[in-house]
Amino acid sequence: MPSSVADTSPLTLNRLSVYLRCLRALAAEGVKTVSSQELGERFNLSSAQIRKDLAQFGDFGVRGVGYEVEPLAAALHELLGLSDQHRLVICGMGHLGRALAGYLGFNDLSFSVVAAVDSDPEKVGQELAGLVVRPTGDLRQVVLETHADIGVIAVPSDAAVPIYEDLVAAGVSSILNFAPTSLPESATVRVKNVDMRIYLEEMAFFLKKS
Amino acid sequence: MPSSVADTSPLTLNRLSVYLRCLRALAAEGVKTVSSQELGERFNLSSAQIRKDLAQFGDFGVRGVGYEVEPLAAALHELLGLSDQHRLVICGMGHLGRALAGYLGFNDLSFSVVAAVDSDPEKVGQELAGLVVRPTGDLRQVVLETHADIGVIAVPSDAAVPIYEDLVAAGVSSILNFAPTSLPESATVRVKNVDMRIYLEEMAFFLKKS
Repeated sequence: MPSSVADTSPLTLNRLSVYLRCLRALAAEGVKTVSSQELGERFNLSSAQIRKDLAQFGDFGVRGVGYEVEPLAAALHELLGLSDQHRLVICGMGHLGRALAGYLGFNDLSFSVVAAVDSDPEKVGQELAGLVVRPTGDLRQVVLETHADIGVIAVPSDAAVPIYEDLVAAGVSSILNFAPTSLPESATVRVKNVDMRIYLEEMAFFLKKS
Repeated sequence: MPSSVADTSPLTLNRLSVYLRCLRALAAEGVKTVSSQELGERFNLSSAQIRKDLAQFGDFGVRGVGYEVEPLAAALHELLGLSDQHRLVICGMGHLGRALAGYLGFNDLSFSVVAAVDSDPEKVGQELAGLVVRPTGDLRQVVLETHADIGVIAVPSDAAVPIYEDLVAAGVSSILNFAPTSLPESATVRVKNVDMRIYLEEMAFFLKKS
């Protein structure tokens, strides 16, 4: 079993997240066991890939039976670090920030949105998506008060860097960046830059070729 | 040079999109030529990967000089299908739909948001993000009128499938799905399922290990 971060790629992790979601859907329907074939057919996944991915982390399958749905879901939940509680601060409460605030608090108690900041004085003090918006200038203080450990950046490009710097200065080590600018990673700060325009460009390529 | 879709992975395409964005930033600064090393250092990319990716599509580099910024940007623009104009219809004008409507019309004229639908009678007829919202029930008609070729689904899970079916029935062949449910691809319909929660789960994993 790999135990270090270096052994597990983001792509593998993303597939484990998908498997977990599929297993939860099956558990909700009362399904007790599932084979990799059934899982693959039901959710449009590759059964060989499922077996290969899961085998990396333990002996989950029982020959002739398949996987036990609830125990496997519990193991993936633990493996993905979802047993810990993570606290998100949303930076920027425009439409994207508000969409994310409503959308990212999920998975029972694994993730909760604990704070939101915005630079617009008209938004500060308002309750949006269930959060009282604080001023962006107070971000470091907000992180310290709320013990946020994941920062979500949902501001325009030119506002992203100072927010990034305040998050890092306040000790946030994981940043999910939706601003269309690339923010740097370091030994102590993990950044996931999410540029949704890339998905459109992927589509354009396939539209051109077809 | 690969010429078929099957030869080019989505990951390679996503990197080409990133290179294009970096080249445009350099062009805007008046930079004429750049080496793969400079490009890599400046934008936190792997220079070996840049060379390998670009070599798949042609002889872009000049030994001892590097790449010519504007011609390479133009070639990538063409290669990615961005010379064509694509027309987006946004399905669901909640916060996410409105954020996407403001965000996805970009790249000069490669993508334009031409229509939006929503099932909320209070939103229908309103102008949101520059679009007059039409009723979701008219989606097929809206696609036919506007010649939309990319459908963007930004509705809750349980509303996604009927919208998907209407888009497909109206002849839309590319769908970008932000609903947290997996929609099927077929021989004639390409679907990109975007689940932003997966990025959070990736962060949780690394937070756990660190």
